[in-house]
Amino acid sequence: MIAIDWGTSSFRACLLGPDGAVRERLASARGIMAVPDRQFAASLREAIGPWLARGETRVLMAGMIGSRQGWQEAPYLPCPAGAAELARALVALAFDWAELRLVPGLATRDDAGIAEVMRGEETQIAGAVARGEVPASGLVCLPGTHAKWARLDCDGRILGFATHMTGEVFAALRGHTILGRMMREAPHDPPAFAAGLARAGQPGGLLHHLFGVRAEALAGRIGEEAGASYLSGILIGHEVRAALAEAGTAEVLLIGEAALAARYAEAIAALGGRTRLAAPDAAAAGLFAIGRAG
Amino acid sequence: MIAIDWGTSSFRACLLGPDGAVRERLASARGIMAVPDRQFAASLREAIGPWLARGETRVLMAGMIGSRQGWQEAPYLPCPAGAAELARALVALAFDWAELRLVPGLATRDDAGIAEVMRGEETQIAGAVARGEVPASGLVCLPGTHAKWARLDCDGRILGFATHMTGEVFAALRGHTILGRMMREAPHDPPAFAAGLARAGQPGGLLHHLFGVRAEALAGRIGEEAGASYLSGILIGHEVRAALAEAGTAEVLLIGEAALAARYAEAIAALGGRTRLAAPDAAAAGLFAIGRAG
Repeated sequence: MIAIDWGTSSFRACLLGPDGAVRERLASARGIMAVPDRQFAASLREAIGPWLARGETRVLMAGMIGSRQGWQEAPYLPCPAGAAELARALVALAFDWAELRLVPGLATRDDAGIAEVMRGEETQIAGAVARGEVPASGLVCLPGTHAKWARLDCDGRILGFATHMTGEVFAALRGHTILGRMMREAPHDPPAFAAGLARAGQPGGLLHHLFGVRAEALAGRIGEEAGASYLSGILIGHEVRAALAEAGTAEVLLIGEAALAARYAEAIAALGGRTRLAAPDAAAAGLFAIGRAG
Repeated sequence: MIAIDWGTSSFRACLLGPDGAVRERLASARGIMAVPDRQFAASLREAIGPWLARGETRVLMAGMIGSRQGWQEAPYLPCPAGAAELARALVALAFDWAELRLVPGLATRDDAGIAEVMRGEETQIAGAVARGEVPASGLVCLPGTHAKWARLDCDGRILGFATHMTGEVFAALRGHTILGRMMREAPHDPPAFAAGLARAGQPGGLLHHLFGVRAEALAGRIGEEAGASYLSGILIGHEVRAALAEAGTAEVLLIGEAALAARYAEAIAALGGRTRLAAPDAAAAGLFAIGRAG
């Protein structure tokens, strides 16, 4: 089968073997926002034409391609849901050149009744479940612009989840406040990041800790090259503290890019938790699992 | 005497009577950043020339005019400090057309050793002290871009203070994140603000609550006209919770613009605290008190 993770700003396709192993892969910046005039069918045929020509016709797609802004909406499924529920809710697209199906996203509500949605992450989580990566705690974190924390039952179904706007808040603060003026582009600075994590554990609250980035810079204790790492530590520290206060300190599976996941691992370890890092290609593994469950 | 509050983006001058009452006033957008080529002397003479011509020569200035970016630096004084300490540390400017003096700012450190500074707020607080407005708790809040919370001893000296970046974070989130796309310019919406305050008291943390602004907008429960008030309630709610967790719930004196102060009063009341609003012209009253103490 062909497994496709088609997001807002990226397109990733994997040709899978009958055992689910990735045989070939494609990646481009042709996310749904970069497809002219919503020509999704043409864009897809162009990208995976060689695989189709070899007789592969089963195509399963996850991510924003199934949103209202994408090809066709695959309505959100309520939690709890796992691979079996997702498989039963696949949305088929009527074309004669392939068997195209969209994976729905998931919706939940927190204790206060505030709605939350995810689209794409449910498939990555299903992949981690299929590969036996989820710890007994059932806790999974996907760091990023809008970081997701999900809790699973012992059958691998997602019971609920919460989103933290950490990555986007970081970018807005760095790009559009007084804090950014004290930062220069530089590699990750581990001591500054650790200082930010420690700061997040002190009293005063996030809005006060943010102002301290300026104070520490003015005092010369955080240099221009270290400012962004210090800010990142404060934000990730606050996110992880809040998430673990909700969930209890436990083992957490991290699904995401290795460098960012390592920072979350450090933040979780600082609070006494443990982490595992999911293997690459979680989305492809999830699409394979959903395809088999259907 | 002539009392001047000269900040980054505004210039305010008051002609005071011998009893400290404001007789005349001037205000302009000629903050220190709007004075061409640092021509502060010429700018000031032009503004207050008529008063100087009438024989008023004592000029006391507070705010960013005494910073490194201003006319001349009046070095930060360490806490604890009140009107008497500020009066002893005035910095004189050598001109023959007036007796010009700058009020220094204050510096402190929090329990974690992080430095903080204020410049201008110490003078407003000294005015509130002189007018007997500070409650027995000694707790004073000055809402704004960088909101300050100060604690005073029973002699009206500032023991320490903390800054929360609330106003600037609000502007960055509204102007430069996905949240702003769901907001339209509109008057303050009291129910949405109250909902934001309530949200700040729920578990999950600020970075999660921020994402909920989007979720609530998508769900149609917060309209485009109400989004900014909901976001403001979340941020002010988090600030006030953190500040009162530090200080204990108590009576708080609010110094600032009435509409914003009213929102802080609502946030403090929601946590069981009480508030008073300082009378206008706190800076002029503080300059008068510092001038008399010198």
